[in-house]
Amino acid sequence: MKRTTILAVILATLAGVVAFTPTKPRHATAQEAAPIFVKKIPAGYRDWKVVSVAHEAGELNDIRAVLGNDIAIKAYRDGKLPFPEGAIVGRIAWSFVSSEENNKVFGRDQSFVAGSPTDIYLQFMVKDSKKYAATGGWGYSSFDKDGKPTDEEAMKKCFPCHQAIKDRDFVFSRYAP
Amino acid sequence: MKRTTILAVILATLAGVVAFTPTKPRHATAQEAAPIFVKKIPAGYRDWKVVSVAHEAGELNDIRAVLGNDIAIKAYRDGKLPFPEGAIVGRIAWSFVSSEENNKVFGRDQSFVAGSPTDIYLQFMVKDSKKYAATGGWGYSSFDKDGKPTDEEAMKKCFPCHQAIKDRDFVFSRYAP
Repeated sequence: MKRTTILAVILATLAGVVAFTPTKPRHATAQEAAPIFVKKIPAGYRDWKVVSVAHEAGELNDIRAVLGNDIAIKAYRDGKLPFPEGAIVGRIAWSFVSSEENNKVFGRDQSFVAGSPTDIYLQFMVKDSKKYAATGGWGYSSFDKDGKPTDEEAMKKCFPCHQAIKDRDFVFSRYAP
Repeated sequence: MKRTTILAVILATLAGVVAFTPTKPRHATAQEAAPIFVKKIPAGYRDWKVVSVAHEAGELNDIRAVLGNDIAIKAYRDGKLPFPEGAIVGRIAWSFVSSEENNKVFGRDQSFVAGSPTDIYLQFMVKDSKKYAATGGWGYSSFDKDGKPTDEEAMKKCFPCHQAIKDRDFVFSRYAP
């Protein structure tokens, strides 16, 4: 490109940005911005403290531990909302497996334990009000058993679903005593 | 009692002990000794790392987190048996509750979460090969929601039941990845 053409492109781009900003409707919410997903598994998550445990039946058919980093656990224990910056809430999901070994000892079919990692093995919510403003201040992430981020299309459902519990700062899990 | 009577009782007692010891069958195992139960909740257990999670249906109807102190977690991760001295494996059991809130969001009855502490809220196994020789080197403990040790009669079932997994050093729970 000639120098004048380049300049024209730059000016047009700048004009576009400038033009865009004031014309954006005032009622536009953060949700309209593209969500940013977290692509990295938080270091040391397997050492985190327990928030709670749960079982999802149906298609998921998993049993899960919900964990929190120290910032999240402190907020939970203090009963303070919203969660502070840097809080991370995660969950590990294992397949929901009937334990033959345990049932034999109990003499009853009653024991279900954690099996292998599920297809959606790990999920985390990372609090950064600025970075993840488009999704309520939380960055969502999801990883398979090999540690690879799962399908981004499916991830787009995270925030709309978590909006149901906006009054608990978008976090479903309550702290188990 | 007169001095001579006291002496007679002492002598009889000593004689009984002496007489008992050599006549005890050689195949007598540690199990025949009275089990010693742990009566104190280990400090800081709620901060321990996760070993696994489980659901006990039937009468128990709980959902539980199995946790380990650092010694136990290291042994689990290293895959080393028997567990070293000082290892403690614990479990917290909450009532198994269908979550109306979650089900509403999912549009399906599929979500079960941890409710209030169960009647047998906390249980721990404390490794001390000498102190708890009578029960396979593990001291068993069990506490209700108020932190009080539960019925000792029921506790007597701990070790006989755990003997089923003697080859895993009497610990049922496997480490979840």
